[in-house]
Order: sequence, then structure tokens, then C-alpha cells
Amino acid sequence: MIVGIIGGGQLARMLALAGQPLGLEFIFIDPGTGISAASAGQHWQGEYDDPTLLRRLVAAADVATYEFENVPPATIEYLAEHMAVFPSARALDCARDRLHEKSLFARLGIPTVAHRAVNSRADLTEAVAVLGLPAVLKTRRLGYDGKGQAVLRDMADLDAAWQRFHGTDLILEAFVDFGRELSIIAARSRSGDIRFYPLSENVHDRGVLAYSRGQPADARTEEACRYMASLLRELDYVGVLALELFEVGDRLLANEMAPRVHNSGHWTIEGSETSQFENHLRAIVGWPLGNTAPLGHTALFNCVGYLPDPVAVMKIPGAHWHDYRKPVRPGRKVAHITARAADAPGLEAAITALKALLPGHVLG
Amino acid sequence: MIVGIIGGGQLARMLALAGQPLGLEFIFIDPGTGISAASAGQHWQGEYDDPTLLRRLVAAADVATYEFENVPPATIEYLAEHMAVFPSARALDCARDRLHEKSLFARLGIPTVAHRAVNSRADLTEAVAVLGLPAVLKTRRLGYDGKGQAVLRDMADLDAAWQRFHGTDLILEAFVDFGRELSIIAARSRSGDIRFYPLSENVHDRGVLAYSRGQPADARTEEACRYMASLLRELDYVGVLALELFEVGDRLLANEMAPRVHNSGHWTIEGSETSQFENHLRAIVGWPLGNTAPLGHTALFNCVGYLPDPVAVMKIPGAHWHDYRKPVRPGRKVAHITARAADAPGLEAAITALKALLPGHVLG
Repeated sequence: MIVGIIGGGQLARMLALAGQPLGLEFIFIDPGTGISAASAGQHWQGEYDDPTLLRRLVAAADVATYEFENVPPATIEYLAEHMAVFPSARALDCARDRLHEKSLFARLGIPTVAHRAVNSRADLTEAVAVLGLPAVLKTRRLGYDGKGQAVLRDMADLDAAWQRFHGTDLILEAFVDFGRELSIIAARSRSGDIRFYPLSENVHDRGVLAYSRGQPADARTEEACRYMASLLRELDYVGVLALELFEVGDRLLANEMAPRVHNSGHWTIEGSETSQFENHLRAIVGWPLGNTAPLGHTALFNCVGYLPDPVAVMKIPGAHWHDYRKPVRPGRKVAHITARAADAPGLEAAITALKALLPGHVLG
Repeated sequence: MIVGIIGGGQLARMLALAGQPLGLEFIFIDPGTGISAASAGQHWQGEYDDPTLLRRLVAAADVATYEFENVPPATIEYLAEHMAVFPSARALDCARDRLHEKSLFARLGIPTVAHRAVNSRADLTEAVAVLGLPAVLKTRRLGYDGKGQAVLRDMADLDAAWQRFHGTDLILEAFVDFGRELSIIAARSRSGDIRFYPLSENVHDRGVLAYSRGQPADARTEEACRYMASLLRELDYVGVLALELFEVGDRLLANEMAPRVHNSGHWTIEGSETSQFENHLRAIVGWPLGNTAPLGHTALFNCVGYLPDPVAVMKIPGAHWHDYRKPVRPGRKVAHITARAADAPGLEAAITALKALLPGHVLG
């Protein structure tokens, strides 16, 4: 069976590496050269909405998916008319628009960050009056890794932020003084079966995920699973969905969701009976989902803008090296390291060794 | 870094799938079309000793290895003159010739099957007189999966066996009434570090491996590790080596060795912190070896000559599907299934479910 993926970055690469043992083959549509996924399937070079490539994909592939939510909507609409594509256009639309996703959260009774749509300068003033300062002005679409957003600390910041972003749809969100950042990842099959992964506790550095740790016994697990289940059912979702959450006091606020495999779940390759990548593929192909039980204690370090010495990484017991084969550029995710151990002290030892290895890492 | 592999079957495929996360890329030299490894690297189609391809490989790859011991010796000699190739020509020569490997076992004090070289019809008669019947007449080279051998039960069998095999170098081996078949797999790095995997207990069906089970607490572990270590050191071995053993009473007899990743170690993909495939690559590239500790309880089923329904396989908790993408032919290994569980009863449940699924499986 052949899976078409829109995008050929590291998520597509890891999907293909998880899918090959299952007998799946892969085609990636991506305008880049020397893409991360190239060695794990066929790279069809071209724009994400290239009509010729999309027509060819319909003829060649059995099912299609995508590795990022900013795929052109017309691409998904065209594919959905001609072949199976998951997650659905509706799920993608909710996830790619911060206002739509927060409206969905509210409709399902999932607590979320206080927010207001901003379509004019007057809207911005009014939204600030309602939500107070500090607050965060964000583009509704095309934001990721902290891009497309500005923190407003006092009234003098409003004009600069408006100048920067006006002309695109905006949303103002209340500033959340959270305790922890968490995420939950789950897969839903074509037949409606749902499997949850353990929560991840996440640390960001300048808007980019730096560190995640699997938290199988987290006190917020039941609450997060409940929210995730209602989203999956409401959207009749097929594939892997990630939901980012803030812990504020003893409750969770939904921040945003991603209709795809998620960086905070990369530890599932070693740390779960079935990885998020394999379960996304099982779901979209129409196969039964695999067990998501954790295997020991696991943490994940992103390598953003630098590549550590792989030999030093591999010397650390329980460290697993994942090189995305991308040119190193500032702010770019080029590799990750999973640390796994049978027990908590073993994981702490690996984390300590990795921190010493990753210069200037956010965890110190 | 680019790894050249002579052969593009399922072992090369699984090596490449293990190596891609480490940032390695792969070239396979193989005369076949639609080879198993094709989707995980570059396939250079041609004979294993094609001089043009070998010259190109020397220029393109950083290190070379092979997936089967019947690679032409001239290929390894040529590569060894021009680039790093592991395991060495000497290790390959010992492993590919049943007489050489048994002489090596004897020299190292490793108990082995009683045997005699057979170079003439008179030799055969004399060998039978010494070793008795039943005995097994084998070609010294090019045998695998039970091919190239004949069991001699009475004197009347000698002429037929001689007619079948004469003209090639032969060995007569005493028939061993063993209790269990075991194998031990280990990796040795360029710097001489050795890591042992847990023993595998193996069941063959008509000469082909049908089933293996990881045996971390096996009583024969220390003895097997001792034999393995002396082989690795004597051969100054780099890479993964497998040693097949018979258990007779409470001792082990070495049967044969394979200078490569081994079918009885496929369960290490899910059942060990670092798989045999990753450790073979770490070794030959010059990187530190990974931890070989077992992860739970694991067994392996080969699919020989048939492909079960993957959906039925994936429904079984803890079952992991590995499709080699090879045309199904009688006697051909086309897939394997690993069953893993946190505890022994969980593994038994998975084994029972898999046996029901694999019609006519040797384990019944």
C-alpha cells in the first residue's frame, strides 16, 4: 500500500521509517531539495498545491496525509474529492485557525484561554479592554514555534503590534500564568477506536519545544483524555491528534491542537509499545491501532540550530539518536535525542549526562 | 556517512531502517529487481562482484559490510584493499567454510560437533567408520537454511549422497541428538568493546528458522558468552556475530557461526534497548555500542512461504509486523512477527494468539 504525504520534513521521515516495516511505501510532495524524508521514500519535488503532482498522487497512492497544518486547504479539498485523506478537511480547518479551534473547545466544554477575534484596530483596543494586559496578539493561521505572535505588555505596544500584523486575521489571547505545559496525543482509527498516549510535560525555549518528558502517572491524565476524546469524536477524527494544554492551578486550559504527529510525542518511538508514527499510519490505512503503553521512563531533547557530537550522545546509556539529515540553521529542529531507562533514577542519570552535552540547553 | 551493503535482502533492509535515524545513508549492491531493501536506500543493480559497481562503491561509501556469508571472497578482498569493510575477510572465511569454523572452534577450546573433512569417496567411508551413523554430509560452503546437506542413516545412503555432492568440498558431521537449539548474538566495536544479547532459543522447520524466543535468564548464558567472546577476540571481529549452538545434556556444542546480523536476533528490534541492526552499524562505523538489555519478554515468528493477514496480526496486543516486501514463494522468508509483553503470561497469550493465526506453524 502506498501512502502520500504532503510535506517531506522530519515528521514525514519518521512516519515513513515507522511504516516501512508494516510494508507501506511512501511518496512525499515537497518543494525543497535534499529533504529530510528523501531517503525513506519517493520525493516528488513541487509545490504543495501543484495540480499535476496532486493528480499523479491520486493515481499512485492509496491514502494521503500531511505533516503540517499549513498545507494549502485547496490541496486537501482536491485530494478529499478523489481519494482517502486523513485527517479530514474539517479537522484541518479547526486546527489551523486559532479562532476556530478555540470556538470548538468552547462548544465542547473544554476550558480554553480567554480570547477575542481582532479584525480592526478598534477590535484590538476593545479586546485589550476586556482581556486586560499582558495579552498575546496572534495571527489566526500560519503560526508555529512562536512565530506570528507578539506579547502586549502595556498600551504603548498596541500600535507596533498592529502595524506588524494587520492585514491578516488576528486573535488576542489573555496571557496565561501557567504552572506547566502539557500535551496529550491520541490516535483514532477509521472504526472509531481511540488510544491515548501518556501525557507529555513540555518545556519551550523562545517558542520552540526544547524538552518533553513522558508522564504516565500524571494527575491531569483523566482530564486531558476526556478533552481529547470529545475532540476526536466531534471531528470524527482519523489519525493522530495532539492537544497542547496549560496547567493553571489544578486544572487544564486547552491552548491549541495539531492534526498530526507531534514533536512532544517523538519519545514514543522508544518509549511506547507502538509509536505515534506507526499508530497514525495504522489509523489512516484502516488498520487496528497498536498498544500505547509506556516502556519505562522516557524524555526527549530537541536539537534546535545545532547538532551535538553523535558519538558523545551514543555513549550515554539509554540515549537514542535521531538525525533528521537537515542543514543546520539557527532556530531549526535538526535532530532529537530520546533518553529511556527502566526506572526513574536511570532516566535522571541520562538526563544529567545529556544536559552536560547540549550546550546552553534551556534546562541548564 | 554512507554505508555500502553487499546484498539487498531483508537483512540489508532492516540495517538501513535502523541506520537512518542515526543519520546514515545506504547503498545496496544486488543483482535482483524489486529488492527488499530498495525503499531504504539506493539500489545499484549488478552482480556482487561487478568491478564497476565495486569501484563506484569505494568512491561513494565510507564503510562497507555484507548481509550474507556467500558474498564472493574477491569482493571482500577488493573492498578491503580500498576501504573499511567489516567483518574482515578472515572472519568471513572462517564463517563461510564449515571446516574452517569447526577448526577455529577446536583451536579456541569451544566444544563442537565431531566432524571429518571429506574430499573423496574413500574419505567418506572412513569418516562414517569414525563418526558412526546417523551422520550429516554437508557442503563446506554455500549452505544455508538446511540447503547443501544430507542425513546419512545407513551405509546404503552413502552413494546417493556422494553422487549428489561430490565435486565440492565436503564435511561429515556426527548426528547430534540435542535437547535445544540456541544462538548467541554479540557485537564488538572497532575499539574492542563487546556487548552480548540474551540467548535465543530457536525452533527450525525443515532446516529453516521458524521461531525464536529471547532467554535472558537462560542457564547456558555464561558458557555461550565465553565462547562468543573468545571468537570475537581471536578474529579481532568488528560488527555483529551470531553463533548457533546445540544444548546436549547440560553443555553446549557450537554448530556454526554467521558473520552478520542473524534471523534469531530479529526480536531485538522491539525487545532490546539497542537492536542487533543498530549495533552492527555502530560497530562498523566506529561508534560506541548501545545497551543490549532486554525490554520485557519477546518471541519471534518467521513467515516462510506465506504472508498472514496483517490486520489479524496487528489486532494481537504486543504483536509487531515486519513485511519484507518480497514476492511470496515456497520456503522463502517474507516477513516476521515479534511478540513482546511486559511479563511472561502476556507473552504466552500473544504466542497462543499468533499460533492460531499462522496455519500449520511448526509450533502447532
